[in-house]
Amino acid sequence: MNAPREFSGIAPRPVPAAMLEALLERFGSRCTTALAVREQHGRDESPFDVAPPEAVVFAETNEEVAEVLALADEHRVPVIPYGAGTSLEGHLLAVQGGISLDLSRMNRILQIHAEDLTVTVQAGVTRNQLNAELRHLGLFFPIDPGADATLGGMSATRASGTNAVRYGTMRENVLGLTVATPHGRLIRTGSRARKSSAGYDLTRLYVGSEGTLGAICEVTLRLYPLPEAVSAAVCSFPTIDAAVRTTIAIIQMGVPIARCELLDAHAVRAVNRHDKLTLTESPMLLMEFHGSTASVQEQAATVQDLASEMGGTDFQWATTPEERTRLWTARHHAYLSALQMRPGCRSVTTDTCVPISRLAESINESVLEVEASGLPYFIVGHVGDGNFHLGYLIDPAQPQERELAERLSAQMVARAIRLEGTCTGEHGIGLHKQDFLLEEAGAGTIDQMRVLKSALDPHNIMNPGKIFPLR
Amino acid sequence: MNAPREFSGIAPRPVPAAMLEALLERFGSRCTTALAVREQHGRDESPFDVAPPEAVVFAETNEEVAEVLALADEHRVPVIPYGAGTSLEGHLLAVQGGISLDLSRMNRILQIHAEDLTVTVQAGVTRNQLNAELRHLGLFFPIDPGADATLGGMSATRASGTNAVRYGTMRENVLGLTVATPHGRLIRTGSRARKSSAGYDLTRLYVGSEGTLGAICEVTLRLYPLPEAVSAAVCSFPTIDAAVRTTIAIIQMGVPIARCELLDAHAVRAVNRHDKLTLTESPMLLMEFHGSTASVQEQAATVQDLASEMGGTDFQWATTPEERTRLWTARHHAYLSALQMRPGCRSVTTDTCVPISRLAESINESVLEVEASGLPYFIVGHVGDGNFHLGYLIDPAQPQERELAERLSAQMVARAIRLEGTCTGEHGIGLHKQDFLLEEAGAGTIDQMRVLKSALDPHNIMNPGKIFPLR
Repeated sequence: MNAPREFSGIAPRPVPAAMLEALLERFGSRCTTALAVREQHGRDESPFDVAPPEAVVFAETNEEVAEVLALADEHRVPVIPYGAGTSLEGHLLAVQGGISLDLSRMNRILQIHAEDLTVTVQAGVTRNQLNAELRHLGLFFPIDPGADATLGGMSATRASGTNAVRYGTMRENVLGLTVATPHGRLIRTGSRARKSSAGYDLTRLYVGSEGTLGAICEVTLRLYPLPEAVSAAVCSFPTIDAAVRTTIAIIQMGVPIARCELLDAHAVRAVNRHDKLTLTESPMLLMEFHGSTASVQEQAATVQDLASEMGGTDFQWATTPEERTRLWTARHHAYLSALQMRPGCRSVTTDTCVPISRLAESINESVLEVEASGLPYFIVGHVGDGNFHLGYLIDPAQPQERELAERLSAQMVARAIRLEGTCTGEHGIGLHKQDFLLEEAGAGTIDQMRVLKSALDPHNIMNPGKIFPLR
Repeated sequence: MNAPREFSGIAPRPVPAAMLEALLERFGSRCTTALAVREQHGRDESPFDVAPPEAVVFAETNEEVAEVLALADEHRVPVIPYGAGTSLEGHLLAVQGGISLDLSRMNRILQIHAEDLTVTVQAGVTRNQLNAELRHLGLFFPIDPGADATLGGMSATRASGTNAVRYGTMRENVLGLTVATPHGRLIRTGSRARKSSAGYDLTRLYVGSEGTLGAICEVTLRLYPLPEAVSAAVCSFPTIDAAVRTTIAIIQMGVPIARCELLDAHAVRAVNRHDKLTLTESPMLLMEFHGSTASVQEQAATVQDLASEMGGTDFQWATTPEERTRLWTARHHAYLSALQMRPGCRSVTTDTCVPISRLAESINESVLEVEASGLPYFIVGHVGDGNFHLGYLIDPAQPQERELAERLSAQMVARAIRLEGTCTGEHGIGLHKQDFLLEEAGAGTIDQMRVLKSALDPHNIMNPGKIFPLR
């Protein structure tokens, strides 16, 4: 699938020979122009075709990151910070060429302060790596976008995922950053204190900036004690509406549920097949409760009552770590499992998020529309947050299917905005949602964002063409 | 007390006659140059002497706010947004003259969405007004800086207060804003969705910007269900250190305590006298627990055990609303009560916040220093966040007392920064902490902040001289 038409005619900004020579001299084999490496760095998990950079540089220190940026700024060459390559909106495509700056080798956990519930990591540390390191301390980092993304990348896209309903998103859990500016300067934002009123909140300006304002080199995060008790449950519902109404009741009652995920019947069927499970193939809530033993029991009892009132059946508990892992692994496989339901397909995936009371309307109308269209689809969602993903499974060889999916997606976004929500709960804007951002935020707000971008990155070297169209 | 020497000698920027005439014509009696009104608007609750604006305009609509800003931008005249006048760092002083833009008449609660736990208010609504309106819905807004501040002002200073340990600060609880830009344009940021990855986080850029980037006109906030059970307790300790170590243990164990406040013996003595209480006059923790009945009991039992281990005694419970109100009212009076312990004095108040494991060191050394100095003082603190306020009670007629207090304060801030904390947990930078901000954030980070300021407010009309020195 091609990048959206707005990006097809963008003039490339070639890397001057002098810059390439300087990079090769400085980085040796850690700077490469090999096609295979470039192609691997010019894609993400979006359905867009690859748009490779001219070169890939593997940085190992903050200073190296800053050096590359200073050199690129001098030569007006685009730089795209790269972590694990798991973004979903075309963030990593080198639409104007330039350099992919791979930070995955910056993968050291720098400082764990168990007593303060904070950790500082290099940007290339992945969330699974971090949690493996934390487990023996009785701590964890809850933000879980499914993919084993890097913490730098998760910061850059303001990621969230299944635990956000209780623990918040990267917005709430990044305490501070070390950032290389486009001028090649290293700055620190925030501190290890839990709160601060010390000047502008640069931390949260860089969180969610999608690599367009600077390169995140280090991240200081909040940690949490592993809960005394954890219990997961699945519950089947006769309709999506019943599952969603149960979710709304859970949230409105203030139950401190840790995870509250919806899978529609298509998604359940897909994970059953992929992970060899025998879940009832109807709409399902997959939930998790964290707390003291008494609190978990209390939460679970409340939720079971609410679910029963809405027609929920087959309430099944998973209390051993193994059972829980099996369920959550299946949930994390849902996207890949669904793709396998239609061999050769790609997914155009939505990411709307609405106020919780509008969730039923938001989902129900989207389902009616996609059912009427005849396109295969699946739904998974962090419904406790009002956020869900509908994946339209399209045949990339059939342009009319992509057009249909994009039309349905646009209708869904328009509805989410009308319901006072957002076009993207956690995936970001990237290449794909720029028109939606304009629709959601309005021209005046976009102008303010562009003023910030021009001020902080005057030569537009940082991931150009993302969030906003080039002009 | 004069404003810091850096601000004496700032060239005023007079309001041209043409602008004043335009304002008088447009706003009639809602634009005034009466000295009493100007003086009331040229001070806050800091110890600085009044620095009155040239005129005060009382705005009643977003459009009026935008009009005033557009006019001021055209004439290069400073504008200082004004809410309830309760800031503490000289934020409202018209150090370059100009207009005070009073938003207190913009005091309508615009939309309560109980089912989504959100509310949208005009900037001049105060937190007590909001909570009075919410109570019959079984909801509340937890952020509680003590003073009955406006929600616009609380957003602008990134306020927090006693409930932040559980519910977060304004940073976590503002979902979106309507802002008038210095160019007189009204923009909206955020949405009512709980999370979003839609572009730069302008909401959190304006939250904490102290009126220097634009005027906040409307605020959309997260709400919470009133807890099923609430219980408050006081516990006395032989030393401040014992109280602080109890706090550290509570936080490290992950007890979801709602409030955890320290009062030192001086503060307890002051509130006893002011509020006619009979609290034991030794260091005290004042705590509150929110949750289900079972959860509150469980939290309370855990905390009582921890406190006993540290030598805590006189554990007293307040479970009726009246008893709780009496205790928290006393806590909120602590600042005024302490001032009355030394008639005619003013308080130079610190606001450091450190990682929780560093809190004992941070407080203990500060106490040793102030004890050695002989200055009267008191301590109150949101210790669950690592944040506390030490008030040096100085005689304003004795310049050497102010100098001594400022020297002790600077030592405390340097220590907090060395302990990886911040110079201000919740009061902001204003006029008073600009050197500390530089010390904490570093020149490179301040440069980035200044780039943002210049880009968004090119004529520097928005609250000039605050956060950064003029230059």
